[in-house]
Amino acid sequence: MTDNAPQKTSPTPLTLLGLGAMGTTLARTWLAAGHPLTVWNRTPARAEPLVAHGARTAPTAAEAVAANELVVLCLLDDASVEEALADADLTGKDLVDLTTGTPARARARAAWARERGARFLDGGIMAVPPMIGAPESGGYVFYSGSPAAFDAHRQTLTVPAGARYVGEDPGFAALQDVALLSAMTGMFAGLSHAFALVRKEDIDLLEFAPLLAEWLVAMAPAAQTTAGELTSGDYTTGVVSNLAMMVAGNTTLLRTAEEQGVSSELLLPFMDLMERRLKDGHGDESTTGVIELLHR
Amino acid sequence: MTDNAPQKTSPTPLTLLGLGAMGTTLARTWLAAGHPLTVWNRTPARAEPLVAHGARTAPTAAEAVAANELVVLCLLDDASVEEALADADLTGKDLVDLTTGTPARARARAAWARERGARFLDGGIMAVPPMIGAPESGGYVFYSGSPAAFDAHRQTLTVPAGARYVGEDPGFAALQDVALLSAMTGMFAGLSHAFALVRKEDIDLLEFAPLLAEWLVAMAPAAQTTAGELTSGDYTTGVVSNLAMMVAGNTTLLRTAEEQGVSSELLLPFMDLMERRLKDGHGDESTTGVIELLHR
Ligand SMILES: NC(=O)c1ccc[n+]([C@@H]2O[C@H](COP(=O)([O-])OP(=O)(O)OC[C@H]3O[C@@H](n4cnc5c(N)ncnc54)[C@H](OP(=O)(O)O)[C@@H]3O)[C@@H](O)[C@H]2O)c1
Ligand SMILES: NC(=O)c1ccc[n+]([C@@H]2O[C@H](COP(=O)([O-])OP(=O)(O)OC[C@H]3O[C@@H](n4cnc5c(N)ncnc54)[C@H](OP(=O)(O)O)[C@@H]3O)[C@@H](O)[C@H]2O)c1
Repeated sequence: MTDNAPQKTSPTPLTLLGLGAMGTTLARTWLAAGHPLTVWNRTPARAEPLVAHGARTAPTAAEAVAANELVVLCLLDDASVEEALADADLTGKDLVDLTTGTPARARARAAWARERGARFLDGGIMAVPPMIGAPESGGYVFYSGSPAAFDAHRQTLTVPAGARYVGEDPGFAALQDVALLSAMTGMFAGLSHAFALVRKEDIDLLEFAPLLAEWLVAMAPAAQTTAGELTSGDYTTGVVSNLAMMVAGNTTLLRTAEEQGVSSELLLPFMDLMERRLKDGHGDESTTGVIELLHR
Repeated sequence: MTDNAPQKTSPTPLTLLGLGAMGTTLARTWLAAGHPLTVWNRTPARAEPLVAHGARTAPTAAEAVAANELVVLCLLDDASVEEALADADLTGKDLVDLTTGTPARARARAAWARERGARFLDGGIMAVPPMIGAPESGGYVFYSGSPAAFDAHRQTLTVPAGARYVGEDPGFAALQDVALLSAMTGMFAGLSHAFALVRKEDIDLLEFAPLLAEWLVAMAPAAQTTAGELTSGDYTTGVVSNLAMMVAGNTTLLRTAEEQGVSSELLLPFMDLMERRLKDGHGDESTTGVIELLHR
């Protein structure tokens, strides 16, 4: 075999701790792809259906960890990770923690793992269980932490969903995960207000919704314009409707809400920031400068 | 010529009142498409560049209105419409008002126009000037009001941008326009929060932005799920992550903001509504029920 020949390696064996809704789905995709899989769950009964699909079980988390070099965690929160790994020997392990948390908790867990002789990757899952094992769904996982561990296990990690490595700082996966979820929260707030405005009128919501979705899709590339402005520090490059025009337009939005008997509480905080920024003399800029006002 | 033969009609002549940023762009597309165009602007100098492209000018708004059956308005606000049309004879005219406003103002203007013997269409422009005359941009105009007037002028109205007729109620164009802009305001608030979280870290914003945009695009079809739930009244059909899980997840979003020194003011109002809805016993539903709490 030459160095360039495609290497036909057998699927990497791994351990998975946590068989909730997400963990169970992850387990199924690894089993389906032929990976030898050792599972452990606090409530052992949840492992049974997987045994029928070829999973091995371990009586304790420590024994499950001992079974393989690659150990994936998908538990409720950081306290459950702490508890599950309390007695485990982590020397020489590659720990991949898919448990949702903040950047600071990922960094602390990474330091803790390193002290115990393990390489550490944190993961932020940008998918719900039905998107796991379904590449066409576009779901993926942010990874950050040990680049060597990511390189070693990239193929295995790509089985349940796309893998995007976003840096050595173990906090970056969680940070970008939370940033995307926060942006989505804003979008859902906007959608809720939009539906409240129209739903008591004689308007077919099933005809209106695609227009609404299409409009948001058309406006989503504003993210790129904003990134360009934040990078250059020039907030006038992407201006088609400047802050002064946007603030003037807000009046129509607020009056319409009033006419329709809808509370404006979901729109007001952003409008308030726009007005503050306008009063500070930035009327000819885009809305990007509003971001300055969010830092404490 | 048989009834089915394609009719080769010459472009409809029309009048346009208002040559601001938007009006000027509209004028150019009609002139370029060969429509005889009479324009009027309060400040006459703004009409001059259009005369070079074949526009006729009228010394007063009333004379401009007299020149053609089809009269399009693109003025600053309703007060400027009132002022511009004060002395005009509207008998037999088809008035198309593209001036931004609320549904109530469109309904009032429609009644006023009908009393004066005109048919009335209100329009809500879902585009900025660079998108006018550029079909590939996806910009369009919502129209509502007289169906006969819309049918008569559909072709002419489609010259600057796509035309979507959304009903006989003259307020519906403005209502759907404002609903889309309101949803966009929420999305921009979410984007602002997301950028505030990451921008002081060693993260390339130009690499992060496309991920953010792609995520919002992937989540935008939530509008269709929400419309389905509002239509059926069953808020459990689209549940992949129920309200209880979403509220639990908010903790991570708020803690991350805290860690990054970012104010949560843009996220809190929606999170508060989610919590209220959860306390009301709807934890197993989607977030759609939050919309109920917005009606005063
Ligand atoms: N589901 C999603 O849509 C989704 C999407 C993205 C990210 N995630 C993340 O994935 C992780 C798992 O989510 P999930 O949906 O699978 O949650 P889940 O269905 O609630 O399952 C929670 C898992 O954590 C275990 N657990 C809880 N407390 C424990 C403790 N003290 N010690 C040991 N194990 C404990 C549970 O064990 P028992 O069976 O014994 O209770 C169960 O295996 C979470 O961090 C979640 O945020 C989920
Ligand atoms: N630009 C956009 O991106 C955009 C997008 C969607 C919708 N719209 C809507 O389109 C309409 C026009 O917008 P625009 O961007 O063209 O605004 P603009 O550039 O500010 O122009 C305003 C126009 O209104 C006229 N006007 C103001 N007060 C008047 C009065 N009392 N009597 C008569 N005319 C008066 C101005 O005439 P003078 O030249 O004499 O000042 C000018 O022609 C607005 O309702 C806007 O909301 C604009």
